[in-house]
Amino acid sequence: QQTDVVVLTSEGPLEFLPGWLRPGAVVIDCGQHWGILGNRSSSSWPPCTPFHPPTPPPQNVVRSACRWLRQQRYRPWRLRSLTLQPLSPVPSDIEISRSQSPKAIELLAREVGLLPDEIEAHGKTKAKVRLSLLDRLKEQPDGKYVLVAGITPTPLGEGKSTVTVGLAQALTAHLKLNSFACLRQPSQGPTFGVKGGAAGGGYAQVIPMEEFNLHLTGDIHAITAANNLVAAAIDARVLHEATQSDKALYGRLVPTVNGLRKFSPIQTARLRKLGIDKTEPGALTPEEIRSFVRLDIDPSGITWQRVVDTNDRFLRKITIGQASTEKGQARQAQFDIAVASEVMAILALTDGLRDMKERFSRMVVGSSRTGRPVTAQDLVSVCVRVCARAFPLLVSNLYPQGTPVFVHAGPFANIAHGNSSVLADKLALKLVGEEGFVVTEAGFGADIGMEKFFNIKCRTSGLRPNVVVLVATVRALKMHGGGPKVAFFSRCSPWQNLQLVADGCSNLRKQIEIAQLFGVPVVVAVNVFRTDTEAEIDLVCRIARDSGASDAVACYHWSRGGRGCVELARAVRKAAQQPNHFRFLYDLQMPIVEKIRTIAQKVYGADDVEVSQEAQAKIDNYNEQGFGNLPICMAKTHLSLSHLPDWKGVPTGFLLPIRDVRASIGAGFIYPLVGTMSTMPGLPTRPCFYDMDLDPDTEQIAGLF
Amino acid sequence: QQTDVVVLTSEGPLEFLPGWLRPGAVVIDCGQHWGILGNRSSSSWPPCTPFHPPTPPPQNVVRSACRWLRQQRYRPWRLRSLTLQPLSPVPSDIEISRSQSPKAIELLAREVGLLPDEIEAHGKTKAKVRLSLLDRLKEQPDGKYVLVAGITPTPLGEGKSTVTVGLAQALTAHLKLNSFACLRQPSQGPTFGVKGGAAGGGYAQVIPMEEFNLHLTGDIHAITAANNLVAAAIDARVLHEATQSDKALYGRLVPTVNGLRKFSPIQTARLRKLGIDKTEPGALTPEEIRSFVRLDIDPSGITWQRVVDTNDRFLRKITIGQASTEKGQARQAQFDIAVASEVMAILALTDGLRDMKERFSRMVVGSSRTGRPVTAQDLVSVCVRVCARAFPLLVSNLYPQGTPVFVHAGPFANIAHGNSSVLADKLALKLVGEEGFVVTEAGFGADIGMEKFFNIKCRTSGLRPNVVVLVATVRALKMHGGGPKVAFFSRCSPWQNLQLVADGCSNLRKQIEIAQLFGVPVVVAVNVFRTDTEAEIDLVCRIARDSGASDAVACYHWSRGGRGCVELARAVRKAAQQPNHFRFLYDLQMPIVEKIRTIAQKVYGADDVEVSQEAQAKIDNYNEQGFGNLPICMAKTHLSLSHLPDWKGVPTGFLLPIRDVRASIGAGFIYPLVGTMSTMPGLPTRPCFYDMDLDPDTEQIAGLF
Repeated sequence: QQTDVVVLTSEGPLEFLPGWLRPGAVVIDCGQHWGILGNRSSSSWPPCTPFHPPTPPPQNVVRSACRWLRQQRYRPWRLRSLTLQPLSPVPSDIEISRSQSPKAIELLAREVGLLPDEIEAHGKTKAKVRLSLLDRLKEQPDGKYVLVAGITPTPLGEGKSTVTVGLAQALTAHLKLNSFACLRQPSQGPTFGVKGGAAGGGYAQVIPMEEFNLHLTGDIHAITAANNLVAAAIDARVLHEATQSDKALYGRLVPTVNGLRKFSPIQTARLRKLGIDKTEPGALTPEEIRSFVRLDIDPSGITWQRVVDTNDRFLRKITIGQASTEKGQARQAQFDIAVASEVMAILALTDGLRDMKERFSRMVVGSSRTGRPVTAQDLVSVCVRVCARAFPLLVSNLYPQGTPVFVHAGPFANIAHGNSSVLADKLALKLVGEEGFVVTEAGFGADIGMEKFFNIKCRTSGLRPNVVVLVATVRALKMHGGGPKVAFFSRCSPWQNLQLVADGCSNLRKQIEIAQLFGVPVVVAVNVFRTDTEAEIDLVCRIARDSGASDAVACYHWSRGGRGCVELARAVRKAAQQPNHFRFLYDLQMPIVEKIRTIAQKVYGADDVEVSQEAQAKIDNYNEQGFGNLPICMAKTHLSLSHLPDWKGVPTGFLLPIRDVRASIGAGFIYPLVGTMSTMPGLPTRPCFYDMDLDPDTEQIAGLF
Repeated sequence: QQTDVVVLTSEGPLEFLPGWLRPGAVVIDCGQHWGILGNRSSSSWPPCTPFHPPTPPPQNVVRSACRWLRQQRYRPWRLRSLTLQPLSPVPSDIEISRSQSPKAIELLAREVGLLPDEIEAHGKTKAKVRLSLLDRLKEQPDGKYVLVAGITPTPLGEGKSTVTVGLAQALTAHLKLNSFACLRQPSQGPTFGVKGGAAGGGYAQVIPMEEFNLHLTGDIHAITAANNLVAAAIDARVLHEATQSDKALYGRLVPTVNGLRKFSPIQTARLRKLGIDKTEPGALTPEEIRSFVRLDIDPSGITWQRVVDTNDRFLRKITIGQASTEKGQARQAQFDIAVASEVMAILALTDGLRDMKERFSRMVVGSSRTGRPVTAQDLVSVCVRVCARAFPLLVSNLYPQGTPVFVHAGPFANIAHGNSSVLADKLALKLVGEEGFVVTEAGFGADIGMEKFFNIKCRTSGLRPNVVVLVATVRALKMHGGGPKVAFFSRCSPWQNLQLVADGCSNLRKQIEIAQLFGVPVVVAVNVFRTDTEAEIDLVCRIARDSGASDAVACYHWSRGGRGCVELARAVRKAAQQPNHFRFLYDLQMPIVEKIRTIAQKVYGADDVEVSQEAQAKIDNYNEQGFGNLPICMAKTHLSLSHLPDWKGVPTGFLLPIRDVRASIGAGFIYPLVGTMSTMPGLPTRPCFYDMDLDPDTEQIAGLF
């Protein structure tokens, strides 16, 4: 710790926002003067000479301090933006991405008010943002918080990502309101499988899209590694306990090194949990040694699975431990897709390193032979492998206006909550300031992504949304109205059919009602396709307004960039000024089944739930273990409001079957499985990577879309 | 492509090295004048105005061009270095690492002659270096090339990494010779298992060591992902072929999209391989369709394995595909540790993106039911997932002199060649210049790592070594002389025993002889431990010199940093001036068994080899498939010159058993398995991660060593 430096101004109290001071800085009042107390080691402080109060500082020090403070003050961003001249027909996403040089990330960071030592650049277009920012800006009021959700989609998706990107472009570049888009990092499984990239599209995308769709800074890989370290530790421990005596185990777990024998922090924590308050390894009784060394994990009760970030269907059900070295400990297991890992869900829900560490240690990985939950805490410190990942990534710029985007975490949207990260949203809300906007996206239809956003993410973060943007397409509404199913490679129906559209709006109406259950104003965004007619769009907007939406507007961001979303931006700005009566749908103290029933009935429109015996037994078990007060994270198909993907529109008169119930204790939710949910997608006969190639001369990747 | 710019000097021919010009630049002679023809889009060109010859350019343009050229000229580095004041006793590695602020990577890059757009910074202490450098400096003569190898080690290792680091520190900071250390990126498996970190140690380490030992820029993760994408593609293809007709497969593999049907580049390559020169999907005959759509992979002939970067013993032998969705296609498989992937071996051996791409497509992943090799080319373009990884990482600084290190790739040292990357070595050899030194390390003892360095790596790269540094410790020599086995947690024997040392020097003598087989001068470096006596060290040095070493010196880098290696640096500089008669040990045209026998007899000292039937059958098969001319990569224990880890010293009179033979066709070698080789380490009862923890306030990681 270096000497603190006090800078006093002789010009009376300075007009500054305390929130802009860095962590550790203290504002002091010396008589009629104000001063700033900070630590000199910080590189962003103005250059100044150390001195001791009450001796006044030299005038030049005072002047440079004042100048520095003025520079730090919050103000509307002055983003250097480029003019957009969209081409018609719209070129491919990758052509659009490559036609634009991304803004240097240091410049973008400076423009949005980040200090140089708050970012860690990764290449020229990406930077991790340090969490110390939250502390520096803690007095800064949050901006407006906008959630982008959607109607029940077709398998192709209805464009929530492009609306998120387009809306942020319009707000920042056209309405000159500070705004951030917060996106999830896409899993490489679907990118290389059937879905393709997830960087938005057309003139509303994140660039450079190759990097967005490939490794970025390797967060998902680090999560994979952390997850699999826990898995390896579990099985190795089962083997070691099965083949060693208490004494041998204790000797190896607490070895004598250079004549010294002591407990590691993980072990001290375990002793505390067991109620043993000894610190001297030699002092434990044989019974204490036994309870200390034996986690006594029941191999059939291990719930922690290994993960890969590849669609690898052959790992859905496997038998592990078949080598002779594993001495007959073979057991059935499975791999999930990496983003389904609880480590990912925690990264997306945590609000800082301390909380993250606690959540990791709470993760339940299985149960002992006596039925007690076994936690990750007893095995391994996962956070070491993930810690660098806790910093959200200020990726790059929305084309072409050079506006900022955070990309951070990307939890699975059915067995997890499928929302972008709390940390990214919080950082963005501070950076945009009170008049600014943060646009964040929830996966799947509003019945799933939005419900989880409110009941899980907002409950955890304490953040309150101001507006919901509900994305709809004429294509999906026609399907809900009874039109043909939409599949990959099928083209939009080029004929006008107002009746189909009107009938399909039942789904839109229902999703608006769901948002209203939570007391948040809704703006409907119709993502316009080339084949849509004006009459169809007008019809959707009219029905939306009649159904209680604050407004409903057509969006042309894909073909026009931010300019195509200006009307939506205006509608969102207006809706954000409406009174907001946000409320949760259920109380955490309600019994688990009651919470599930509330979601099923009020959100999905089911008559009731039908809980299987297996599910009921698990629920009883969770209640017993003290996990009954967690929120619910439904694992349900996104292709219907019901549990059956083929039931379009607004299904009624059905019982929602709860096949099984599981828990992510570290992430902090119970997840009921509705119907069959695959946690490992497969590869199609012709996967996306058939079209991907690398040009060794230009280093460019072809075939990403 | 922007307008080219011509800058003419009116001062006559400029004295510059053409190698310093960037790719695409052309030097032209305009009458009695010289000029530079380049592309203006490059940011590193001097600012200049476009004009057309023969109009002469303005004087200021000429001046700035001349200045720029002078600046680009190669010269001895002027590294800003800090003074080292080593503490005694030597603090822990992590304390030493943290007590030093790493030099800003941009500064280090500039100091060693890198241009701003040749690096891509990752945070403040790491940067990827672009391969375009090789082209820019192609006319620059290479520096001297020094390999650090070792005697047959104890399980604790004898300090090759610290010698590599210490030697480069001494050369650069004390002898003022430009020099680079090239290290392998450590696998996280061992780091979290039993071995701990691999950043060197004491006052000869790479900082920041936390990053070095954890993700760095995620290269190993990307390799894991690429490897596993190939695996998923193989099994999915087997399933799809088993469950679909030719017509259905063809329809899905070459679908009609928006009315168009065409082959992807992967498919076009496959058609070429099949001798079908049609480009119109509709034109194929049913027979051609059948041969096109059916790779006809034999599930029992799949040799490609999945990998994880975790010591996960339960994945050594597994059964995959047991879910009902895989329709009875279950088969036995295994996971290897990530660094054992052929993708990693290729990354370490390739000399550029084009070569890497070709090697990836040559990788043999299994065989068809008719016995033909199936290559990765038919399945997936791996390079997309790895391409960003091809850039070596200029990591950070050697403590405390701030000298440069490349860290790139880290292939397994038994089933692969265990050497740092060709690309990193090549970049470093150009950067240090003719008088400079590049110090690179080979894994395991010299009988394995050095032999593979010469016969595989140098053969591939075309590079020729100038000096071998052979690292020995008194501890290991005592073991070879018949002293007690060395194990983890065992302390050095604190008594002097000259007889044990003298006897153990048999191993040292043999390893010197092995190096001499290749015609390269050897300098022996005795890595001194606190417990070694002067008499012991002198004895080792004397025996080494008597055995034909150019020199033998004691090294104190661990406790003194670069200063402790100055004598070694002088000896290396002197040896590098000796005449060098480098030769390979065997000719590639020799039969596979002959090549194996040559290594067994000349290097290991075996009487002969004993090839199992299984191995012989594989060899016959490889010969038939045209792979007989590849070099040999022996997979043998590193703990003995023989195949039995307990045979210390110089075993004689044994037959080397060749249990099995496999091939990495993309990497370009055949690897015989000698005895049992695990490709997946296990976790001990108390793994390293028991002592690792993250402090959420300081963000520091405890317990790495």
